[in-house]
Amino acid sequence: MRFPTVQEQLDTIVGNVVEIISVDELEKKLQHSLQSGKPLKVKLGADPSRPDLHLGHSVVLRKLREFQDLGHEAILIIGDFTAMIGDPSGKSKTRPQLSAEEARENGKSYFEQASKILDAGKTTICYNADWLGKMGFSDVIRLSSHYTVARMLERDDFERRYRSNEPISIHEFLYPLAQGMDSVHLKNDVELGGTDQKFNLLVGRDLQREYGIAPQVCITMELLVGTDGKEKMSKSLGNAICFNDTPNDMYGKALSIPDSLIETWHRLLVSENAATLAGVREVVGNDPRAAKRDLARAIVAQYYSDEAARVAEEHFDRIFVQKKAPENIELFEFDMESMPIVDMLVTLCAAPSKSEARRMIQQNAVTVDEEKITNVNAAIELVEEPKIVKAGKRKFYKVAAKKTF
Amino acid sequence: MRFPTVQEQLDTIVGNVVEIISVDELEKKLQHSLQSGKPLKVKLGADPSRPDLHLGHSVVLRKLREFQDLGHEAILIIGDFTAMIGDPSGKSKTRPQLSAEEARENGKSYFEQASKILDAGKTTICYNADWLGKMGFSDVIRLSSHYTVARMLERDDFERRYRSNEPISIHEFLYPLAQGMDSVHLKNDVELGGTDQKFNLLVGRDLQREYGIAPQVCITMELLVGTDGKEKMSKSLGNAICFNDTPNDMYGKALSIPDSLIETWHRLLVSENAATLAGVREVVGNDPRAAKRDLARAIVAQYYSDEAARVAEEHFDRIFVQKKAPENIELFEFDMESMPIVDMLVTLCAAPSKSEARRMIQQNAVTVDEEKITNVNAAIELVEEPKIVKAGKRKFYKVAAKKTF
Repeated sequence: MRFPTVQEQLDTIVGNVVEIISVDELEKKLQHSLQSGKPLKVKLGADPSRPDLHLGHSVVLRKLREFQDLGHEAILIIGDFTAMIGDPSGKSKTRPQLSAEEARENGKSYFEQASKILDAGKTTICYNADWLGKMGFSDVIRLSSHYTVARMLERDDFERRYRSNEPISIHEFLYPLAQGMDSVHLKNDVELGGTDQKFNLLVGRDLQREYGIAPQVCITMELLVGTDGKEKMSKSLGNAICFNDTPNDMYGKALSIPDSLIETWHRLLVSENAATLAGVREVVGNDPRAAKRDLARAIVAQYYSDEAARVAEEHFDRIFVQKKAPENIELFEFDMESMPIVDMLVTLCAAPSKSEARRMIQQNAVTVDEEKITNVNAAIELVEEPKIVKAGKRKFYKVAAKKTF
Repeated sequence: MRFPTVQEQLDTIVGNVVEIISVDELEKKLQHSLQSGKPLKVKLGADPSRPDLHLGHSVVLRKLREFQDLGHEAILIIGDFTAMIGDPSGKSKTRPQLSAEEARENGKSYFEQASKILDAGKTTICYNADWLGKMGFSDVIRLSSHYTVARMLERDDFERRYRSNEPISIHEFLYPLAQGMDSVHLKNDVELGGTDQKFNLLVGRDLQREYGIAPQVCITMELLVGTDGKEKMSKSLGNAICFNDTPNDMYGKALSIPDSLIETWHRLLVSENAATLAGVREVVGNDPRAAKRDLARAIVAQYYSDEAARVAEEHFDRIFVQKKAPENIELFEFDMESMPIVDMLVTLCAAPSKSEARRMIQQNAVTVDEEKITNVNAAIELVEEPKIVKAGKRKFYKVAAKKTF
């Protein structure tokens, strides 16, 4: 295929990028690829122990897609090797132990979700257990001889923990080396990651050099702040919009971000185009609500369609602007004539526990047929017409006794 | 077999020991072994990359032999796994890379030499590549999850290097874990080592506990000071007496130790018996030379025989006391009529280099037929009768031109 010129490519690549190590090397690699007609191999690591992708992941995925559109090869590495081991010390919650099947399954799901952004047909996908799983103790000794303890302790989180006498298990030093070994195996030219991955990316670069391979260019991307406007987007912090969220949820969550985030989200999630962003900035200044509705529609349209975005907006307006119940609510039927409201909220998964259900009622967040529930011991009659239960701002349920009952 | 009582065993075991971690546990293990009739498994690790045993090694080997004599099982572990890997960073000279054959060969040689002290027929010998070589990357991650970076950095040499910014490669952390894994595999009750091995012994103890095995008792032994009376005995420092030294060399080297060492050497190498040592102390006070001759004979007798010790003493007296050449000197024949003395010394391996040969001549350490050589450019005539070349105090050579020449 015909590649754009090196300058055209560089202009595209630098968007939303925080750091390129190094620009000179990237330029040379692009030059060489242009002359030889050989696309660059661009690596992105995926953690199958956290299989739900959210907009935070989309920032690097969009960059990877840009490389694809420039004619380069995108390689998605599913880190099933470490996912299968988990955290043997049991201290890390983000590293649960997965079976080989779960790891493959999650990897497949990761790829399917990522395909909403990537050109799936042109994406190489591989599982690092295929090579890391074959390494023996002596290979690991050889691998780890290429890195020093002092260097590893320079990583921000290790340094902080070591200084404050929090234990660091030695196996934690082996994980960055394992993912660095992926780069040795793949001989990729570029690796992408968030700024929080910079250390790991550099380990891959160092190891390639140690193993006599041309070192990869490391490109780190801006991290997306979550819907709370404070923390980095993360599912466990509850400030995430997931690829698999419904259009209604996506739209509603996007509208909940603070005005100060609108432009940044637009740049990281919708378009890097300077003229477009200038337009967005103007709308934010005049009518931030309108700007946010544009953004929310654009996000839903990206993951679903323009039509889905329009419907989601209508749905939102009906419930929150006109304060009506949504048009189609799923019916839940119970095997009883009446049910305590607390039990019902837990059964509907509207509350994670009875105490949480009670708390919601005490905070006036629960209505039945638009009537506020104030008594935590109230029981709801189910034999008449179906009733509409509303819990919090966005959760609606239609409940009734089973017909056959 | 019948074991001696626990107290009798303890009395034997504590001799020459620096530390037992812990005495309580050892007592319980001895008690249990006595009741069950099951001998304790006593582990000693052997490094096949340094296959020449010297008297320094004999201190722990003698302790292991004592355990055998008390009815327990001696297990000699040949560390062929790490010997085959060597030091991949190439920084450590004491860890050259050995082939599998060399490692086995050296291991066999180690065992043969150790058999001069151990009851060979009752010694279990095993090679740790048999289990460590089967461990994969994931096993290593699990293993290393049981130890923290901070704990490893407590090891004296690591701590010193880390503080003074000397690089420590991560693979160096894996070696103590590997040898500790030996204890997990063997489920041994006791491990022996010099005081310099204390950290490694404790790693084995910790890992056994982590893997749910009763932790081994660690017994550290005094380190033997070499013939120079200063440094720990070591072949590379040139202050060692090797198991494979000739009786004459053993005897001569033993006589060269400072008087202050006689009693300690006797205790560590000949007998721990208090009455015997009191006798030695008395002789040292009255006639240190006689005490040293007794010690030297006792050492030669141990590795060879009483007769060999007597002959070695006679040989020594003839050369150094009566200043005569020894009775049987090997004849070296050269393909020439005359030879520069410097070349000759190097050819005979009397000097490691020409400059060293010149230095020896300048220090009046070289004679030919009892005549001192003073000119470094002197050439030695070889056509007449064989001549006796003496280099240093103990090296004699008979040299002549080849008859056929």
